[in-house]
Amino acid sequence: MKSSAYLDALIKKISKLPGIGPKSASRIAFHILGMHRDDVEGLARAMIELKRNTYTCSVCGGISDGGTCSICQDASRDRGLICVVEDAKDVLTIEGTGEFHGLFHVINGLISPLDGIGPDELNIGTLVAKCGQGSVREVILALNPSVEGDATSLYIARLIGSSGVTVTRIAHGLPVGADLEFADTATIIKSLEGRVKI
Amino acid sequence: MKSSAYLDALIKKISKLPGIGPKSASRIAFHILGMHRDDVEGLARAMIELKRNTYTCSVCGGISDGGTCSICQDASRDRGLICVVEDAKDVLTIEGTGEFHGLFHVINGLISPLDGIGPDELNIGTLVAKCGQGSVREVILALNPSVEGDATSLYIARLIGSSGVTVTRIAHGLPVGADLEFADTATIIKSLEGRVKI
Repeated sequence: MKSSAYLDALIKKISKLPGIGPKSASRIAFHILGMHRDDVEGLARAMIELKRNTYTCSVCGGISDGGTCSICQDASRDRGLICVVEDAKDVLTIEGTGEFHGLFHVINGLISPLDGIGPDELNIGTLVAKCGQGSVREVILALNPSVEGDATSLYIARLIGSSGVTVTRIAHGLPVGADLEFADTATIIKSLEGRVKI
Repeated sequence: MKSSAYLDALIKKISKLPGIGPKSASRIAFHILGMHRDDVEGLARAMIELKRNTYTCSVCGGISDGGTCSICQDASRDRGLICVVEDAKDVLTIEGTGEFHGLFHVINGLISPLDGIGPDELNIGTLVAKCGQGSVREVILALNPSVEGDATSLYIARLIGSSGVTVTRIAHGLPVGADLEFADTATIIKSLEGRVKI
Protein backbone atom coordinates (compact mmCIF):
# COMPACT_ATOMS: atom_id res chain seq x y z
CA MET A 1 0.00 0.00 0.00
CA LYS A 2 1.24 3.47 -0.85
CA SER A 3 0.65 6.45 1.41
CA SER A 4 0.61 8.84 -1.58
CA ALA A 5 -0.55 8.19 -5.13
CA TYR A 6 1.53 11.14 -6.40
CA LEU A 7 4.69 9.73 -4.85
CA ASP A 8 3.95 6.31 -6.28
CA ALA A 9 3.34 7.76 -9.76
CA LEU A 10 6.62 9.67 -9.80
CA ILE A 11 8.66 6.71 -8.51
CA LYS A 12 7.25 4.53 -11.31
CA LYS A 13 8.15 7.10 -13.95
CA ILE A 14 11.65 7.71 -12.59
CA SER A 15 12.43 4.00 -12.41
CA LYS A 16 11.91 3.78 -16.20
CA LEU A 17 14.92 6.05 -16.78
CA PRO A 18 18.14 4.24 -17.78
CA GLY A 19 20.35 2.98 -14.94
CA ILE A 20 17.81 3.71 -12.22
CA GLY A 21 16.33 0.86 -10.21
CA PRO A 22 13.34 1.05 -7.85
CA LYS A 23 15.49 1.96 -4.82
CA SER A 24 17.27 4.83 -6.57
CA ALA A 25 13.93 5.98 -8.00
CA SER A 26 12.39 6.21 -4.54
CA ARG A 27 15.49 8.00 -3.24
CA ILE A 28 15.30 10.54 -6.09
CA ALA A 29 11.53 11.03 -5.60
CA PHE A 30 12.03 11.81 -1.91
CA HIS A 31 14.86 14.17 -2.84
CA ILE A 32 12.49 15.96 -5.24
CA LEU A 33 9.88 16.13 -2.48
CA GLY A 34 12.44 17.86 -0.28
CA MET A 35 13.61 20.29 -3.00
CA HIS A 36 12.42 23.89 -3.16
CA ARG A 37 9.32 24.26 -5.33
CA ASP A 38 11.12 26.59 -7.77
CA ASP A 39 13.90 24.04 -8.27
CA VAL A 40 11.40 21.25 -8.98
CA GLU A 41 9.62 23.45 -11.50
CA GLY A 42 13.00 24.35 -13.03
CA LEU A 43 13.91 20.69 -13.45
CA ALA A 44 10.51 19.88 -14.96
CA ARG A 45 10.74 22.86 -17.30
CA ALA A 46 14.28 21.90 -18.39
CA MET A 47 12.98 18.50 -19.50
CA ILE A 48 10.09 19.94 -21.48
CA GLU A 49 12.27 22.66 -23.01
CA LEU A 50 14.91 20.16 -24.11
CA LYS A 51 12.22 18.14 -25.86
CA ARG A 52 10.49 21.17 -27.40
CA ASN A 53 13.43 23.32 -28.44
CA THR A 54 16.13 21.01 -29.73
CA TYR A 55 16.53 19.84 -33.28
CA THR A 56 18.93 17.80 -35.36
CA CYS A 57 21.77 20.00 -36.66
CA SER A 58 21.39 20.31 -40.43
CA VAL A 59 25.18 20.20 -40.89
CA CYS A 60 26.54 17.55 -38.49
CA GLY A 61 23.42 15.60 -37.49
CA GLY A 62 24.02 16.28 -33.77
CA ILE A 63 21.75 18.11 -31.30
CA SER A 64 21.19 21.81 -31.88
CA ASP A 65 18.99 24.58 -30.50
CA GLY A 66 18.22 25.85 -33.98
CA GLY A 67 19.01 24.93 -37.60
CA THR A 68 22.78 24.60 -37.12
CA CYS A 69 24.44 23.66 -33.81
CA SER A 70 26.83 26.00 -32.00
CA ILE A 71 29.83 23.75 -32.75
CA CYS A 72 29.20 23.88 -36.52
CA GLN A 73 28.62 27.66 -36.28
CA ASP A 74 31.83 28.30 -34.33
CA ALA A 75 34.27 30.04 -36.70
CA SER A 76 37.26 29.17 -34.48
CA ARG A 77 36.98 25.42 -35.12
CA ASP A 78 39.14 23.62 -37.65
CA ARG A 79 36.82 23.04 -40.63
CA GLY A 80 39.32 20.75 -42.32
CA LEU A 81 38.99 18.08 -39.59
CA ILE A 82 35.82 16.02 -39.12
CA CYS A 83 35.30 13.49 -36.33
CA VAL A 84 32.71 10.85 -37.22
CA VAL A 85 30.71 9.48 -34.28
CA GLU A 86 27.85 7.01 -33.86
CA ASP A 87 25.42 9.29 -31.99
CA ALA A 88 24.99 12.76 -30.50
CA LYS A 89 26.00 11.49 -27.03
CA ASP A 90 29.50 10.77 -28.38
CA VAL A 91 29.86 14.44 -29.39
CA LEU A 92 29.47 15.34 -25.70
CA THR A 93 32.01 12.71 -24.67
CA ILE A 94 34.68 13.92 -27.08
CA GLU A 95 33.92 17.60 -26.37
CA GLY A 96 34.37 16.73 -22.69
CA THR A 97 38.09 16.11 -23.28
CA GLY A 98 38.54 19.70 -24.55
CA GLU A 99 41.26 18.39 -26.90
CA PHE A 100 39.37 18.20 -30.19
CA HIS A 101 38.91 21.41 -32.14
CA GLY A 102 37.51 20.18 -35.44
CA LEU A 103 33.89 19.56 -36.43
CA PHE A 104 31.71 16.49 -35.85
CA HIS A 105 29.57 14.32 -38.06
CA VAL A 106 26.94 12.10 -36.41
CA ILE A 107 25.98 9.07 -38.51
CA ASN A 108 23.18 8.00 -36.13
CA GLY A 109 23.94 4.30 -35.79
CA LEU A 110 26.20 1.59 -37.17
CA ILE A 111 25.88 -0.76 -40.12
CA SER A 112 24.24 -3.90 -38.75
CA PRO A 113 22.74 -6.27 -41.32
CA LEU A 114 21.26 -8.46 -38.54
CA ASP A 115 19.20 -5.50 -37.33
CA GLY A 116 18.34 -4.48 -40.88
CA ILE A 117 20.49 -1.34 -40.76
CA GLY A 118 22.38 -0.75 -43.99
CA PRO A 119 24.45 2.30 -45.05
CA ASP A 120 21.33 3.96 -46.50
CA GLU A 121 19.73 4.14 -43.04
CA LEU A 122 22.71 6.12 -41.73
CA ASN A 123 23.73 9.77 -42.17
CA ILE A 124 26.69 8.89 -44.39
CA GLY A 125 25.70 10.52 -47.70
CA THR A 126 26.13 14.07 -46.38
CA LEU A 127 29.59 13.14 -45.03
CA VAL A 128 30.67 11.98 -48.48
CA ALA A 129 29.27 15.20 -49.97
CA LYS A 130 31.25 17.30 -47.43
CA CYS A 131 34.44 15.44 -48.31
CA GLY A 132 33.88 16.10 -52.01
CA GLN A 133 33.92 19.90 -51.49
CA GLY A 134 37.71 20.07 -51.14
CA SER A 135 37.87 21.83 -47.75
CA VAL A 136 38.10 18.69 -45.62
CA ARG A 137 41.66 17.55 -44.86
CA GLU A 138 41.10 14.62 -42.51
CA VAL A 139 38.21 12.45 -41.29
CA ILE A 140 38.73 10.74 -37.91
CA LEU A 141 36.48 7.70 -37.43
CA ALA A 142 35.62 7.51 -33.71
CA LEU A 143 33.20 4.58 -33.79
CA ASN A 144 33.09 1.92 -31.08
CA PRO A 145 35.56 -0.98 -31.49
CA SER A 146 32.87 -3.61 -32.21
CA VAL A 147 32.12 -5.75 -35.27
CA GLU A 148 29.51 -3.21 -36.39
CA GLY A 149 31.79 -0.26 -35.60
CA ASP A 150 34.70 -1.75 -37.55
CA ALA A 151 32.48 -2.65 -40.52
CA THR A 152 31.05 0.87 -40.61
CA SER A 153 34.54 2.41 -40.34
CA LEU A 154 35.77 0.29 -43.25
CA TYR A 155 32.72 1.16 -45.34
CA ILE A 156 33.16 4.91 -44.76
CA ALA A 157 36.94 4.71 -45.36
CA ARG A 158 36.37 3.09 -48.77
CA LEU A 159 33.71 5.65 -49.76
CA ILE A 160 35.84 8.65 -48.84
CA GLY A 161 39.26 7.21 -49.72
CA SER A 162 39.00 8.17 -53.38
CA SER A 163 38.27 11.84 -52.58
CA GLY A 164 41.84 12.50 -51.42
CA VAL A 165 40.83 13.05 -47.78
CA THR A 166 43.03 11.34 -45.14
CA VAL A 167 40.90 8.85 -43.20
CA THR A 168 42.08 7.84 -39.70
CA ARG A 169 40.60 5.76 -36.90
CA ILE A 170 40.96 6.42 -33.13
CA ALA A 171 43.46 4.09 -31.45
CA HIS A 172 42.23 0.85 -29.89
CA GLY A 173 44.37 -0.59 -27.10
CA LEU A 174 44.85 -0.70 -23.37
CA PRO A 175 42.91 2.01 -21.53
CA VAL A 176 45.05 4.33 -19.39
CA GLY A 177 45.49 2.83 -15.91
CA ALA A 178 44.59 -0.71 -17.03
CA ASP A 179 46.65 -3.76 -16.12
CA LEU A 180 48.02 -5.90 -18.97
CA GLU A 181 47.41 -9.01 -16.83
CA PHE A 182 43.65 -8.47 -16.80
CA ALA A 183 43.16 -7.18 -20.35
CA ASP A 184 41.18 -9.36 -22.79
CA THR A 185 42.96 -11.01 -25.72
CA ALA A 186 41.23 -8.90 -28.39
CA THR A 187 42.39 -5.68 -26.70
CA ILE A 188 45.97 -6.95 -26.36
CA ILE A 189 46.02 -7.93 -30.06
CA LYS A 190 44.71 -4.46 -31.01
CA SER A 191 47.34 -2.80 -28.80
CA LEU A 192 50.12 -4.83 -30.45
CA GLU A 193 48.83 -4.09 -33.96
CA GLY A 194 48.55 -0.38 -33.14
CA ARG A 195 51.99 -0.05 -31.54
CA VAL A 196 53.70 3.29 -32.06
CA LYS A 197 57.38 4.25 -32.16
CA ILE A 198 58.62 6.15 -29.12
CA MET B 1 31.65 23.58 -25.94
CA LYS B 2 28.06 22.34 -25.88
CA SER B 3 26.05 21.85 -29.03
CA SER B 4 22.77 22.62 -27.19
CA ALA B 5 22.22 24.95 -24.22
CA TYR B 6 18.98 23.12 -23.35
CA LEU B 7 20.77 19.78 -23.18
CA ASP B 8 23.52 21.27 -21.06
CA ALA B 9 20.99 22.86 -18.66
CA LEU B 10 19.10 19.60 -18.15
CA ILE B 11 22.27 17.54 -17.61
CA LYS B 12 23.40 20.00 -14.92
CA LYS B 13 20.06 19.78 -13.12
CA ILE B 14 19.88 15.98 -13.32
CA SER B 15 23.42 15.55 -12.00
CA LYS B 16 22.34 17.28 -8.78
CA LEU B 17 19.94 14.43 -7.97
CA PRO B 18 21.23 11.91 -5.42
CA GLY B 19 23.32 9.02 -6.74
CA ILE B 20 23.61 10.46 -10.25
CA GLY B 21 27.02 11.48 -11.59
CA PRO B 22 27.71 13.47 -14.75
CA LYS B 23 27.85 10.38 -17.00
CA SER B 24 24.48 9.01 -15.80
CA ALA B 25 23.01 12.51 -16.04
CA SER B 26 24.00 12.79 -19.68
CA ARG B 27 22.68 9.27 -20.36
CA ILE B 28 19.33 10.16 -18.76
CA ALA B 29 19.12 13.49 -20.62
CA PHE B 30 19.63 11.74 -23.97
CA HIS B 31 17.04 9.17 -22.95
CA ILE B 32 14.58 12.01 -22.23
CA LEU B 33 15.43 13.54 -25.60
CA GLY B 34 14.49 10.24 -27.23
CA MET B 35 11.25 9.81 -25.24
CA HIS B 36 7.83 10.64 -26.66
CA ARG B 37 6.83 14.23 -25.92
CA ASP B 38 3.77 13.11 -23.92
CA ASP B 39 5.94 10.91 -21.70
CA VAL B 40 8.38 13.75 -21.02
CA GLU B 41 5.49 16.04 -20.11
CA GLY B 42 4.03 13.28 -17.91
CA LEU B 43 7.31 12.91 -16.04
CA ALA B 44 7.66 16.68 -15.58
CA ARG B 45 4.03 16.94 -14.42
CA ALA B 46 4.48 14.06 -11.95
CA MET B 47 7.34 15.97 -10.28
CA ILE B 48 5.38 19.20 -9.99
CA GLU B 49 2.25 17.39 -8.80
CA LEU B 50 4.17 15.51 -6.12
CA LYS B 51 5.53 18.79 -4.83
CA ARG B 52 2.20 20.63 -5.06
CA ASN B 53 -0.24 18.00 -3.84
CA THR B 54 1.43 16.09 -1.05
CA TYR B 55 1.30 16.99 2.61
CA THR B 56 2.46 15.59 5.91
CA CYS B 57 -0.11 13.13 7.28
CA SER B 58 -1.68 14.66 10.38
CA VAL B 59 -1.81 11.25 12.09
CA CYS B 60 1.47 9.47 11.32
CA GLY B 61 3.69 12.28 10.01
CA GLY B 62 4.33 10.43 6.72
CA ILE B 63 3.51 11.60 3.18
CA SER B 64 -0.16 11.96 2.29
CA ASP B 65 -2.25 13.28 -0.58
CA GLY B 66 -4.63 15.04 1.83
CA GLY B 67 -5.00 15.51 5.57
CA THR B 68 -4.62 11.85 6.53
CA CYS B 69 -2.62 9.32 4.49
CA SER B 70 -4.24 6.26 2.94
CA ILE B 71 -2.45 3.90 5.34
CA CYS B 72 -3.85 5.70 8.38
CA GLN B 73 -7.30 5.79 6.74
CA ASP B 74 -7.29 2.08 5.90
CA ALA B 75 -9.77 0.36 8.25
CA SER B 76 -8.26 -3.08 7.56
CA ARG B 77 -4.97 -2.23 9.28
CA ASP B 78 -4.16 -3.27 12.84
CA ARG B 79 -4.59 -0.06 14.87
CA GLY B 80 -3.05 -1.65 17.95
CA LEU B 81 0.37 -1.95 16.32
CA ILE B 82 2.54 1.08 15.50
CA CYS B 83 5.88 0.93 13.70
CA VAL B 84 8.10 3.92 14.48
CA VAL B 85 10.43 5.01 11.66
CA GLU B 86 12.94 7.80 11.13
CA ASP B 87 11.49 9.25 7.92
CA ALA B 88 8.75 8.83 5.33
CA LYS B 89 11.09 6.87 3.02
CA ASP B 90 11.24 4.09 5.62
CA VAL B 91 7.44 3.71 5.44
CA LEU B 92 7.87 2.79 1.77
CA THR B 93 10.66 0.33 2.56
CA ILE B 94 8.65 -1.53 5.20
CA GLU B 95 5.45 -1.42 3.10
CA GLY B 96 7.52 -2.94 0.30
CA THR B 97 7.83 -6.18 2.28
CA GLY B 98 4.04 -6.58 2.37
CA GLU B 99 4.40 -8.22 5.79
CA PHE B 100 3.49 -5.36 8.12
CA HIS B 101 -0.18 -4.61 8.63
CA GLY B 102 -0.14 -2.10 11.47
CA LEU B 103 0.17 1.69 11.31
CA PHE B 104 3.29 3.86 11.07
CA HIS B 105 4.61 6.80 13.01
CA VAL B 106 7.31 8.96 11.40
CA ILE B 107 9.45 10.86 13.94
CA ASN B 108 11.34 12.83 11.23
CA GLY B 109 14.91 12.39 12.41
CA LEU B 110 16.93 10.95 15.27
CA ILE B 111 18.13 12.47 18.53
CA SER B 112 21.60 13.86 17.80
CA PRO B 113 22.98 16.36 20.33
CA LEU B 114 26.01 17.07 18.11
CA ASP B 115 23.67 18.31 15.36
CA GLY B 116 21.52 20.17 17.87
CA ILE B 117 18.57 17.79 17.46
CA GLY B 118 16.88 16.99 20.74
CA PRO B 119 13.62 15.08 21.41
CA ASP B 120 11.61 18.32 21.06
CA GLU B 121 12.66 18.69 17.41
CA LEU B 122 11.19 15.25 16.61
CA ASN B 123 7.60 14.09 16.16
CA ILE B 124 7.59 12.10 19.42
CA GLY B 125 4.96 13.94 21.46
CA THR B 126 2.06 12.75 19.28
CA LEU B 127 3.34 9.15 19.56
CA VAL B 128 3.23 9.36 23.36
CA ALA B 129 -0.29 10.83 23.15
CA LYS B 130 -1.43 7.94 20.88
CA CYS B 131 -0.03 5.41 23.33
CA GLY B 132 -1.93 7.05 26.19
CA GLN B 133 -5.31 6.49 24.51
CA GLY B 134 -5.41 2.79 25.42
CA SER B 135 -5.92 1.37 21.90
CA VAL B 136 -2.22 0.76 21.13
CA ARG B 137 -0.96 -2.71 22.05
CA GLU B 138 2.61 -2.66 20.72
CA VAL B 139 5.10 -0.10 19.40
CA ILE B 140 7.86 -1.50 17.15
CA LEU B 141 10.91 0.76 16.96
CA ALA B 142 12.39 0.38 13.46
CA LEU B 143 15.16 2.98 13.67
CA ASN B 144 18.60 2.48 12.12
CA PRO B 145 21.15 0.59 14.26
CA SER B 146 23.41 3.62 14.84
CA VAL B 147 24.38 5.51 18.00
CA GLU B 148 21.66 8.08 17.28
CA GLY B 149 19.11 5.39 16.39
CA ASP B 150 19.80 3.41 19.56
CA ALA B 151 19.66 6.55 21.74
CA THR B 152 16.34 7.57 20.17
CA SER B 153 14.94 4.05 20.62
CA LEU B 154 15.91 4.03 24.30
CA TYR B 155 14.42 7.50 24.82
CA ILE B 156 11.09 6.51 23.24
CA ALA B 157 11.02 3.18 25.08
CA ARG B 158 11.37 4.98 28.43
CA LEU B 159 8.69 7.53 27.59
CA ILE B 160 6.14 4.94 26.50
CA GLY B 161 7.14 2.15 28.88
CA SER B 162 5.00 3.50 31.71
CA SER B 163 1.82 3.54 29.58
CA GLY B 164 1.53 -0.27 29.54
CA VAL B 165 2.28 -0.54 25.81
CA THR B 166 4.74 -3.28 24.79
CA VAL B 167 7.80 -1.65 23.16
CA THR B 168 9.91 -3.79 20.81
CA ARG B 169 12.86 -3.10 18.52
CA ILE B 170 13.53 -4.71 15.10
CA ALA B 171 16.27 -7.37 15.23
CA HIS B 172 19.86 -6.39 14.47
CA GLY B 173 22.15 -9.13 13.24
CA LEU B 174 23.53 -10.77 10.12
CA PRO B 175 21.61 -9.84 6.96
CA VAL B 176 20.13 -12.76 5.04
CA GLY B 177 22.71 -14.12 2.59
CA ALA B 178 25.68 -12.57 4.43
CA ASP B 179 28.85 -14.46 5.30
CA LEU B 180 29.88 -14.60 8.97
CA GLU B 181 33.52 -14.37 7.88
CA PHE B 182 33.06 -10.91 6.39
CA ALA B 183 30.66 -9.45 8.96
CA ASP B 184 31.91 -6.59 11.14
CA THR B 185 32.47 -7.13 14.86
CA ALA B 186 29.58 -4.89 15.97
CA THR B 187 27.11 -6.86 13.84
CA ILE B 188 28.39 -10.20 15.17
CA ILE B 189 28.07 -8.95 18.76
CA LYS B 190 24.49 -7.79 18.03
CA SER B 191 23.64 -11.13 16.44
CA LEU B 192 24.97 -13.01 19.50
CA GLU B 193 23.09 -10.75 21.91
CA GLY B 194 19.89 -11.14 19.92
CA ARG B 195 20.10 -14.93 19.55
CA VAL B 196 16.75 -16.75 19.53
CA LYS B 197 15.77 -20.29 20.56
CA ILE B 198 15.02 -22.62 17.64
